[in-house]
Amino acid sequence: MLSLLSLRRRIEAGTLTPAGAIALAREAVAAHEPDIAALVSLDPAPVVPTQGPLAGIAVGVKDVIDTADLPTQLGASIYAGWRPKADAAAVARLRRLGAVALAKTTTTAFAFLDPTETRNPRAPGRTPGGSSAGSAAAVAAGMFPLALGTQTGGSVIRPAAYCGVVGVKPSFRLIPTTGVKCFSWTLDTLGLFTASVPDAAHALALMTGRPEIDLSESAPGTPRFGLLIPDFCEAAEAQPLEALRRAVLALEAAGATVRDAALPRAVTAAFAQHGTIQDFEAAQALAWEFDHHREALPPLLRAHLDAAQDIDAAAYDAARRVTHAARRALKTTFREGAFDVILTLSAPGQAPQGFASTGDSRFNRLWTLMGVPCVTIPMPGDEAPLGVQVIAPFSEDGRALAAAHFVERAVSRALA
Amino acid sequence: MLSLLSLRRRIEAGTLTPAGAIALAREAVAAHEPDIAALVSLDPAPVVPTQGPLAGIAVGVKDVIDTADLPTQLGASIYAGWRPKADAAAVARLRRLGAVALAKTTTTAFAFLDPTETRNPRAPGRTPGGSSAGSAAAVAAGMFPLALGTQTGGSVIRPAAYCGVVGVKPSFRLIPTTGVKCFSWTLDTLGLFTASVPDAAHALALMTGRPEIDLSESAPGTPRFGLLIPDFCEAAEAQPLEALRRAVLALEAAGATVRDAALPRAVTAAFAQHGTIQDFEAAQALAWEFDHHREALPPLLRAHLDAAQDIDAAAYDAARRVTHAARRALKTTFREGAFDVILTLSAPGQAPQGFASTGDSRFNRLWTLMGVPCVTIPMPGDEAPLGVQVIAPFSEDGRALAAAHFVERAVSRALA
Repeated sequence: MLSLLSLRRRIEAGTLTPAGAIALAREAVAAHEPDIAALVSLDPAPVVPTQGPLAGIAVGVKDVIDTADLPTQLGASIYAGWRPKADAAAVARLRRLGAVALAKTTTTAFAFLDPTETRNPRAPGRTPGGSSAGSAAAVAAGMFPLALGTQTGGSVIRPAAYCGVVGVKPSFRLIPTTGVKCFSWTLDTLGLFTASVPDAAHALALMTGRPEIDLSESAPGTPRFGLLIPDFCEAAEAQPLEALRRAVLALEAAGATVRDAALPRAVTAAFAQHGTIQDFEAAQALAWEFDHHREALPPLLRAHLDAAQDIDAAAYDAARRVTHAARRALKTTFREGAFDVILTLSAPGQAPQGFASTGDSRFNRLWTLMGVPCVTIPMPGDEAPLGVQVIAPFSEDGRALAAAHFVERAVSRALA
Repeated sequence: MLSLLSLRRRIEAGTLTPAGAIALAREAVAAHEPDIAALVSLDPAPVVPTQGPLAGIAVGVKDVIDTADLPTQLGASIYAGWRPKADAAAVARLRRLGAVALAKTTTTAFAFLDPTETRNPRAPGRTPGGSSAGSAAAVAAGMFPLALGTQTGGSVIRPAAYCGVVGVKPSFRLIPTTGVKCFSWTLDTLGLFTASVPDAAHALALMTGRPEIDLSESAPGTPRFGLLIPDFCEAAEAQPLEALRRAVLALEAAGATVRDAALPRAVTAAFAQHGTIQDFEAAQALAWEFDHHREALPPLLRAHLDAAQDIDAAAYDAARRVTHAARRALKTTFREGAFDVILTLSAPGQAPQGFASTGDSRFNRLWTLMGVPCVTIPMPGDEAPLGVQVIAPFSEDGRALAAAHFVERAVSRALA
């Protein structure tokens, strides 16, 4: 994979030019895109800034995120050839930092569940996950050192875990969603895919103007982990549980404390509310598409929106009240628990075989609804990658990334 | 003015067809638009639904709100001729209800402060206010029974008061902002302009699928009013204070109790935070326009965005913490106060003379930041209209409208 920080170090050392770094990405695209199908459009001759802290960084942008220079087609026939006027705020920010939005990456239609054509570079015959399929697969295939995705249920963390890359779903609205096609305004969250945790932390710090998110060069502390095996939804398969166990052993070997964590009922009660909130909002956010182009919607989304029309405001309000109470209870859980971050599963299993499904987001939806920062760290699996997930309190994105970096290094040492 | 409810009653009685009601709007446009300049585009031959609870209702849509059938130009040369792909969620909803989005109405560029060409139908030589200038003026001129606007500072309540119409800024996100050009995602709120409070309540109830917002035909209760003369910003001029005094007398004559209300320091402290939050977000939301078209931005917005680039994340976070505490304190104030709604000023004075300014939003910004529902009710003024403002707790939009209706009737009786 292309590492953002190593590319930047070579550029700063003068051994690589920004244009040379972009050429590396283009070569990887030429080599892997025919097999992976992660892209929907590619800028044939981008202007490559020579200045800026992300000069030379090629970025893949999920195709629900507006770009002025490339079509934005939302994975949907309705939007074939669509050209927005402006860049989304996140893309404008990346360009200001010197990065190149080199390509748009595949997305399930409107970032829902109907699969893309994208293949998983790390697990032949298995889905790369979704909805940010192309961004996860492109980073895994070494095409880009950074890609943008969005998560409304589990659309960043799940494909990152399936494809064996680092995925970050930051705190809600840490990266603005202005210029991103809305599915659910309470849930839609922009996130990042990278080759490593320090890469992600560096990019997120620059994108948000929050240097404290970056991982300092100084010796980091040893985080206290709260181990959570979710019991509020269907259990995980054996492999991810085994990967989590191996991560715990690696953490303990690295000197960290890992205690069992439990979520109060006030938090887990919100798990069942995610769908009500998402679907009530999606029915409104996609009202034009539903009313004017229902037959052109892909089958899973069409059926889902059909059902979503019946959710009433009272059910939505009730779901929001439960959610509000859960956010407060989770804050208390973090404050009173003997842990700094939660360590849990990223997905219920390896990427499912075949391409009929993008996998299951049940270990992601609660955290998206809580708005808290989540990072998935790759774990080796027998036939396909796995991931473990670190979760921190709202707005503690730096803490989540520092703890994820601790996991990444501990696991790497244990494997060595 | 055209009353939404009277048009609907005539349509239901069979004495007016939906097409006939739309023709009334078109005739009013033909008669008044040359003097008022409230519109930027007009659908020359709209399809007029014959069914639906808003069939026959012509709507003016502020030109920062996406429409698939009409250009959406944001009052900005950068967006001249721009055609979005889809209707904004609110427009799609109105169409589903049978309404016709007949015209786009003028807006200050990106809904900021640079004035439009629009004239005030009720106060020659004075601004109609902004940023929703065209929507307020068009309803005041009798062109439409309903218009959509947005408020980030005071862009619904202020122009409604200046133009002598009813304006409603609902609870934050009660109407989704999907498909509305973002200025500040924490503040941007869609609102309505109508000829009367019952018209607004009926439209809002239908648009949100919340029948409880509609004013029932049964005898309403008598709300308890908390009278607030803001002391956290520069004082009002004499005329609006006198209008507020007359409203209080009318309310007392109608049997309502009016007590002095005070806001705790925890609430008023948020007043100074509005700008920090708005501008930090605007710098990101308009980053593409700023980076690529800075010279084409109008002067007030350009200077404002120049300064906004320097706001850092720490200042923004601090402003959000003060705001969060203020929202909780305001909730407590409402719960513990001996009043159901706050009664206060809608604007610091009548519409300013001339067209160099859209007026002052200082009596609106705190409420936008609090996310609470606000309704302005017209009050007669000597040379130009005035308004008084009713404010209810978050999500109590029905309460705000019922109390505003009580004010509207009490004032009307007092004048009779």
